Amino acid sequence: MDSISRLFQPRSVAVIGASADSRKTTGRPITYLMKHGYAGKVYPVNPKADRIGDLPCYASIADLPEAPDVAIVLLGAARAHEAVRELASRGTAAAIVLASGFGETGEAGAARQAALMSATGQMRILGPNTIGLVNLTDRIILSASAALEMDAFEAGSVGLVSQSGGILGSILSRGAARGIGFSKLISTSNEVDLELSDFVEYLANDPATQVIALYIETIRHPERFRRAVAVARAAGKSVVAYKVGRSEAGARAAISHTGAMAGSDRMYDAFFRQIGVIRAEEFNDLLDLCSALTTTRILKGKRIAVLTSTGGAGTLVADSLGVSGFETPPPDLMTAQALRDLQKGDEAALDRNPIDVTLAGLDPVLLRGIIRAVLASPTYDALVVVVGSSSLAMPDLVADAIRDCLGDSDKPILAYVSPHAPNVVKVLEGRGVPAFLNPESCAIAFQAMETVSQSLPTFTPLLKAPELTALAAREGALNEYEASQLFGHYGIHCAQTQVVHSAQEAVAAAQKLTGPVVLKVLSSDILHKSEVGGVRLGLTAESLLKAFDQMVMDVRTHTGLDAKSFIIQPMLRAPTELIVGMHRDPLGTALMVGMGGITAELMNDSVLCLMPPNMVVSEEQARSLLQQLKSWPILDGYRGKPKLDVDAVVQAIIGFSTMVASLGDRLLEAEMNPLLVMEAGHSAVAADAVVILASKAI
Amino acid sequence: MDSISRLFQPRSVAVIGASADSRKTTGRPITYLMKHGYAGKVYPVNPKADRIGDLPCYASIADLPEAPDVAIVLLGAARAHEAVRELASRGTAAAIVLASGFGETGEAGAARQAALMSATGQMRILGPNTIGLVNLTDRIILSASAALEMDAFEAGSVGLVSQSGGILGSILSRGAARGIGFSKLISTSNEVDLELSDFVEYLANDPATQVIALYIETIRHPERFRRAVAVARAAGKSVVAYKVGRSEAGARAAISHTGAMAGSDRMYDAFFRQIGVIRAEEFNDLLDLCSALTTTRILKGKRIAVLTSTGGAGTLVADSLGVSGFETPPPDLMTAQALRDLQKGDEAALDRNPIDVTLAGLDPVLLRGIIRAVLASPTYDALVVVVGSSSLAMPDLVADAIRDCLGDSDKPILAYVSPHAPNVVKVLEGRGVPAFLNPESCAIAFQAMETVSQSLPTFTPLLKAPELTALAAREGALNEYEASQLFGHYGIHCAQTQVVHSAQEAVAAAQKLTGPVVLKVLSSDILHKSEVGGVRLGLTAESLLKAFDQMVMDVRTHTGLDAKSFIIQPMLRAPTELIVGMHRDPLGTALMVGMGGITAELMNDSVLCLMPPNMVVSEEQARSLLQQLKSWPILDGYRGKPKLDVDAVVQAIIGFSTMVASLGDRLLEAEMNPLLVMEAGHSAVAADAVVILASKAI
Repeated sequence: MDSISRLFQPRSVAVIGASADSRKTTGRPITYLMKHGYAGKVYPVNPKADRIGDLPCYASIADLPEAPDVAIVLLGAARAHEAVRELASRGTAAAIVLASGFGETGEAGAARQAALMSATGQMRILGPNTIGLVNLTDRIILSASAALEMDAFEAGSVGLVSQSGGILGSILSRGAARGIGFSKLISTSNEVDLELSDFVEYLANDPATQVIALYIETIRHPERFRRAVAVARAAGKSVVAYKVGRSEAGARAAISHTGAMAGSDRMYDAFFRQIGVIRAEEFNDLLDLCSALTTTRILKGKRIAVLTSTGGAGTLVADSLGVSGFETPPPDLMTAQALRDLQKGDEAALDRNPIDVTLAGLDPVLLRGIIRAVLASPTYDALVVVVGSSSLAMPDLVADAIRDCLGDSDKPILAYVSPHAPNVVKVLEGRGVPAFLNPESCAIAFQAMETVSQSLPTFTPLLKAPELTALAAREGALNEYEASQLFGHYGIHCAQTQVVHSAQEAVAAAQKLTGPVVLKVLSSDILHKSEVGGVRLGLTAESLLKAFDQMVMDVRTHTGLDAKSFIIQPMLRAPTELIVGMHRDPLGTALMVGMGGITAELMNDSVLCLMPPNMVVSEEQARSLLQQLKSWPILDGYRGKPKLDVDAVVQAIIGFSTMVASLGDRLLEAEMNPLLVMEAGHSAVAADAVVILASKAI
Repeated sequence: MDSISRLFQPRSVAVIGASADSRKTTGRPITYLMKHGYAGKVYPVNPKADRIGDLPCYASIADLPEAPDVAIVLLGAARAHEAVRELASRGTAAAIVLASGFGETGEAGAARQAALMSATGQMRILGPNTIGLVNLTDRIILSASAALEMDAFEAGSVGLVSQSGGILGSILSRGAARGIGFSKLISTSNEVDLELSDFVEYLANDPATQVIALYIETIRHPERFRRAVAVARAAGKSVVAYKVGRSEAGARAAISHTGAMAGSDRMYDAFFRQIGVIRAEEFNDLLDLCSALTTTRILKGKRIAVLTSTGGAGTLVADSLGVSGFETPPPDLMTAQALRDLQKGDEAALDRNPIDVTLAGLDPVLLRGIIRAVLASPTYDALVVVVGSSSLAMPDLVADAIRDCLGDSDKPILAYVSPHAPNVVKVLEGRGVPAFLNPESCAIAFQAMETVSQSLPTFTPLLKAPELTALAAREGALNEYEASQLFGHYGIHCAQTQVVHSAQEAVAAAQKLTGPVVLKVLSSDILHKSEVGGVRLGLTAESLLKAFDQMVMDVRTHTGLDAKSFIIQPMLRAPTELIVGMHRDPLGTALMVGMGGITAELMNDSVLCLMPPNMVVSEEQARSLLQQLKSWPILDGYRGKPKLDVDAVVQAIIGFSTMVASLGDRLLEAEMNPLLVMEAGHSAVAADAVVILASKAI
């Protein structure tokens, strides 16, 4: 067994600083171990006691009869590292350091944390500032937390890793109250050694765990996390996460539009989407999702039957399903007939959905018949049973009827409990039926049951990267001409660009083109040309001279720079324009595709796609990004307008993605803004290009 | 006392069809009355019994010794109207008809409902298909519903009116579970007589009610509802509503863009906003809002202090506050010093928010001191106390400490309870502290506490309506020229329009203008000109001839019509364009203001403002509508661009609103699309106009 496995199933546990007084925090770990029948050896260590309960107490770590598998260190922050050093030298597999007062509290704490880390050696550390871990599968509690003071925790198949101890306690108690059982719960907190990804991987391999739930403050090692989630998915397990820090979104300053449109929380969204982690939007959604996904049922369509014995609550569920894009069609003729045959003599209208089962509420045979008829119907992909107040007195009746039908179909079945009825919820969960107290939870659960069956975004390995050009070896910002040359190297179609250095050259260049032209200042020192008077559109050969002189003056006024170089481009008109850019942050590098123009920018109509290193987006993925834009209909031919050249946009995105993958860390920022999109068959053209390269010294 | 007051506080109750068997549904009403100590007279009516319990039973309504204040009719749908007729003729004030099988079940039911209505006479009816009503203030239950079978309901200050009986039961049981007490609960259901507005008005005048909560399926009488809500607001009471039917939004077909952008659910939003009803977005928000608003505290700013003894949960609350636009600034220096002085010797960092009160969790004196210091701080407008698992054993401790501070400040104080702890929630609510189980509820509650203090949209009475022009007397669609004439009559600036009937006239008209022109077909039979080739932009006198012939052909191809009339307008260029239109539905007439262009349309960036009859939007309100658009920054000068002529847009909106108010029901549809918005000082011009008038026969 490796150290992490020994942490969960220790043959022996030493408790350093154990107290004989079970009311004290330091008395709790041994109390908890004993109370839940821990079968291994327990070694209290405390120089001031001879015995703790029935156990002999040891004066020091050195006195222990053997190296324990696990040690719970109850000493304060100032002394914990000494115990850790001794435990490590004895060959302990893992230590849990509970004390706070480390990295989370300022300079002195950070110094203590450094001391702790240097003391660990080969031993693994959970914490510090953790409330420990709970192995409910084997009923082993390694904690001193009062939040874990419960008589009977129900074991189940949800494994929880939380970066906050308080939140672990909150989720455990809320789960227990509604009958959601856990397999293992781990509070990682300061993560000086063992962290999120270690436990995701452990739980991925833990036979008792079906769904891995995470409370995340930050992901310290995105690549390790990505691999751990892949292991879980390969084992058929879902990973669900609640991530705090959403309100930081957009707060980060950034040079390019791409940066401003990304924001760190959107990067987490993109990261989760890329690796297949389902994100809980609200805190209590986390448990709803665990409940739904432990069934391992997947949703294969949008059509939901709602069975109800209480009209209002059925409407509530159907309405919120509709808001989330689900459908609640009436029963097909055969199913309606089957329902009518079952409910002989009843006046209930059986040709609508929610389907009225008033009489079946207290008749399990009838209820089973109805559920079976609905599950068998080709009209429905899933079922919600609304549980009304008539079930309060006999919760088993409804729950057993549903359970009896679970084997008949692999369609998802959820229950919404209308009155306040924790007992009904618990009984349903106990029968394998996810039971919700909020009508909106049904839609959230179905969405997740739909998502888990979908394949992840696809990427193509960057097998043959185009050779690097000399431009790629430069440092800092390229000017627009250079940047468009670099784009061109990766197959991106850029606007035809002539560099000029005088008004006369500009006129000559314009005369080579048909139609009006664009004049821009060319300088790697000017990132936002239009804001300094450095862009003039729709010029003719005649109006160019005056515009040129004006631009020289304007640029000088705004920037103090004497502009020497300019470019002349044809004035291109396009039905619409996009922005394609990239964003880098600790989670990785994302491709950003957004609708161009001020309105779309204000609405932030853009999508992020996180790219694994050395990978390029596939054609399918590039197309899917465009389809995720709210303004996708504009590309697809809106209100009788012609379809635009989506194929050309897809190729431009792939080219951009290839550039990003090829240049790797050398590329700090890149953006085509706008990418002009012509009608289908008429291409897409980058009309401006930004590239900023890292200095090589870094 | 009027009939409705007698319904809530009857001196006598007759129960028609009462059973002596208390286990039967028909046995329940008398059981409930007796159990909760009803002090008035109870008259069971049942020809088959002599006595029911200790009460003499009457064979018929005719045999009753007096006309009862209230009768509960337990007969089935087929016979209920007979009892109702007899009760009415005896002079009963109000009858509650519980049976289902009326208007909700199809044709036969509708006939029964009609029979019932014709039998009522002067008597008021609650129902049919209702579960009745509960007056918790006076402990009078007039119901046969098992959902009301509880031993002790806590009376409180929330009055609930529900159009669904099942939902009433659900809200009552959920409220009771968290310590939210009700004053009166009414299920109105089929509303053959007494309806939503009657009870809103009753509760507005009920001294025991502070917050009026509504579960709404439909508002049958918007004007009565509007008046009832106004009475409640005038009495300082909040009205909170959950409205089902959100998924119908956008499903209604409509001719104009305005209609498609409105949708019935958005009309409810606009209606609620206009009259000051606070809408619960999710079902459970309804109780959260009741809990928050019964305090009558209002939020005067955005800055929230979060006190927490458990780090993770504090972060959770602060994060969700941030997402909703609230701020959690660190304590000012004086407050930080006050906190430090209180927590002598503690290492907790007191210069951040969430404010760590770990040690205070179990020390009421310290906790009170901290709460007082934070409430006194000018840095904060409100306070959230996060309650952790340490309070589980002693819920009174935290609750009492907060309660003791309530008198020190009128700032809102909420509690978020992190572990599953219904007992803690109940104790807090009992002390007047709104206590939430979802971190997101804090932001929702604060938003409502902010909204209740805000003034409603302002309107100006239409004192002197401009005289009606001959155009207003027309029927059906006006053509664009006529419509723009009508707009002009109300002071709306429209594009200069010349009507022409031949290519030659068109060229002559174009030559009177400088610059390129627009050619449009002119016909009241063609509503969507551009979709039939009936609009050509940017034409010169030269290109006009060919374009004219082409348009004649295109229009014929698409519509089969031989176009005879056309208009020539100058080709106006504007930095942006808006849509201004109207939408009528049973709730009233709404003004719609939206950003123009395809992108904004796809994002549905528009706002609705419901207008009371004979009222015109004020200048302030017109400006506020524009500021509510997501793309408002474009009008206000975005990224260094000039500000646009918002004053002119405001005047155009007021002119449009004046037209809508003046024409009243005669106006079926009207829209300016686009309204071209020039730079500040350069006006706003309606470049197209739609007007459809009702036929006078209607």
